[in-house]
Amino acid sequence: MKVVVLVGGVGGARFLVGLKSLLGAPEHEITAVVNTGDDVWMHGLRICPDLDTCMYTLGGGIDAERGWGRSGESWAVKEELAAYEAEPTWFSLGDRDIATHLVRTRMLRAGYPLSAVVEALCHRWRPGVRLLPMSDDRVETHVVVDDGDATRAVHFQEWWVKHRAALPARSFASVGAETATPAPGVVDALLAADAVLIAPSNPVVSVNTILGVPGVRDALRKTEAGVVGLSPIVGGKPLRGMADACLTALGVETSAEAVGRYYGSRKTTEGGVLDGWLVHTGDRSDVPGVAVRAVPLLMSDVDATAAMARAALELAGAPVG
Amino acid sequence: MKVVVLVGGVGGARFLVGLKSLLGAPEHEITAVVNTGDDVWMHGLRICPDLDTCMYTLGGGIDAERGWGRSGESWAVKEELAAYEAEPTWFSLGDRDIATHLVRTRMLRAGYPLSAVVEALCHRWRPGVRLLPMSDDRVETHVVVDDGDATRAVHFQEWWVKHRAALPARSFASVGAETATPAPGVVDALLAADAVLIAPSNPVVSVNTILGVPGVRDALRKTEAGVVGLSPIVGGKPLRGMADACLTALGVETSAEAVGRYYGSRKTTEGGVLDGWLVHTGDRSDVPGVAVRAVPLLMSDVDATAAMARAALELAGAPVG
Repeated sequence: MKVVVLVGGVGGARFLVGLKSLLGAPEHEITAVVNTGDDVWMHGLRICPDLDTCMYTLGGGIDAERGWGRSGESWAVKEELAAYEAEPTWFSLGDRDIATHLVRTRMLRAGYPLSAVVEALCHRWRPGVRLLPMSDDRVETHVVVDDGDATRAVHFQEWWVKHRAALPARSFASVGAETATPAPGVVDALLAADAVLIAPSNPVVSVNTILGVPGVRDALRKTEAGVVGLSPIVGGKPLRGMADACLTALGVETSAEAVGRYYGSRKTTEGGVLDGWLVHTGDRSDVPGVAVRAVPLLMSDVDATAAMARAALELAGAPVG
Repeated sequence: MKVVVLVGGVGGARFLVGLKSLLGAPEHEITAVVNTGDDVWMHGLRICPDLDTCMYTLGGGIDAERGWGRSGESWAVKEELAAYEAEPTWFSLGDRDIATHLVRTRMLRAGYPLSAVVEALCHRWRPGVRLLPMSDDRVETHVVVDDGDATRAVHFQEWWVKHRAALPARSFASVGAETATPAPGVVDALLAADAVLIAPSNPVVSVNTILGVPGVRDALRKTEAGVVGLSPIVGGKPLRGMADACLTALGVETSAEAVGRYYGSRKTTEGGVLDGWLVHTGDRSDVPGVAVRAVPLLMSDVDATAAMARAALELAGAPVG
């Protein structure tokens, strides 16, 4: 079975671990289309937070407690950069992690596309899932925020990490999206899939950013596979991260139902992408034109996550075993 | 008093410490013109070994035992780069050191000249000596070596670090030197100096590389200051490093006298740069047209090095206090 998953960072990576555990047999093939809207240049290094989180998590290199970055990490470079007063000082770059950024930056500067870089890095990490950046083009999420009397746009990372999403966001801009194309393999994978899943990732800055790359949304609407999303909102709160701050900016309620409606039905909503919508047990959700099912969605361990993936594939019409 | 010193890495840096100790009073001004021929791109980072050795040594950040790199260094990035099989693996980049390279590389890519980068880095290290790169242009020492039946040219660092100078060198090429110009301040400092010293650095790949930047040798010959060199060869052996391997390639004997003659007299040698030549006690040296004096040249501690500097300034006709 061929399964394609749209993913962001921590939540998406953990979901992939469960899916990989479920689809362990070699006849299955998992492709993750990973958000790169959070990517950023820092200290001359190209950082791809979501790609790295997926790669480290699946490859066994993640700091499991923190959810991002490398296990056994040290911070000598960061401390020295601070001693040089090199801005920005609010973004944490670990020493081990920096080696990844150095390899990536060098390859990008040598002319390799990001997808080739990811493939090269995965040669070491062997994530067991084909990781594809949503695009090889530079697409960056910027956030329009209130700043005193005026508004200004800041890079997503500045809003998310420096301000902890506490500055009210007015809107999000996906800079570069209009002229971007999906990375090689993305559209083909979506069209050839037996099931397409939308991981319980941030609906606005992860999933919607991927859908905003011209051609991706069309492929999700055109594929013969069933498309099923998993709600990142449980009991009216985001499972992790600050998705509520993003949803609020768009005037979308922080509820499983509102996010399901935000994604919309493939059949009855213009531009909608869902056939099915998985919500957490006890969360009511009525999404017109979409089959809704409630199961436990907490990703408390790999087995619980695998059970979520099983339910999602079943709802997508591609049941396992 | 204004003193200008031509320097390479470890030996030059230690000499500067002694000179700074001797000329502690605020009316004195020391300018070091630093070799950049060893500079190299590694893992996408611009590395300036001699500039950093001088900066760290004078600024109190050096690993004194190793002679290069940062004190209290760690090696997480290097280990991770090796895990990615990222070449080259034979060049040791410490974590703390990498922060310096990141700041420098970012500034260079933003368009700042190397001299401005050095100034910015020295804002932190406060070396107490004005450090000037010999040139803002890319001038790199390459070594023509025998490789089986053929000859090939390798970057100086590859020859020096990877092969430990064990591959016989046929010749040295200063790539980019013809079109290079001295960094801002270099010629002015030489012309305005009360004394010019040539540190006991590698005569071939440090000092001669600096002299090879068009305009530098002329300024040394034109300045009204006395020019005095300190021999890096003591008892027929280099004080440190592998200067003998470099001298042999040029057919120059590894002796204080031969190096003195290699530099030559300002008065009687075409292109010569010396008025005076300091050799180690007991080393005979006859350099036509150059005043030779023998004093202890071991740099065993700061006081011994300061005494060397005092003798050099005296020989240059600019005695201290």
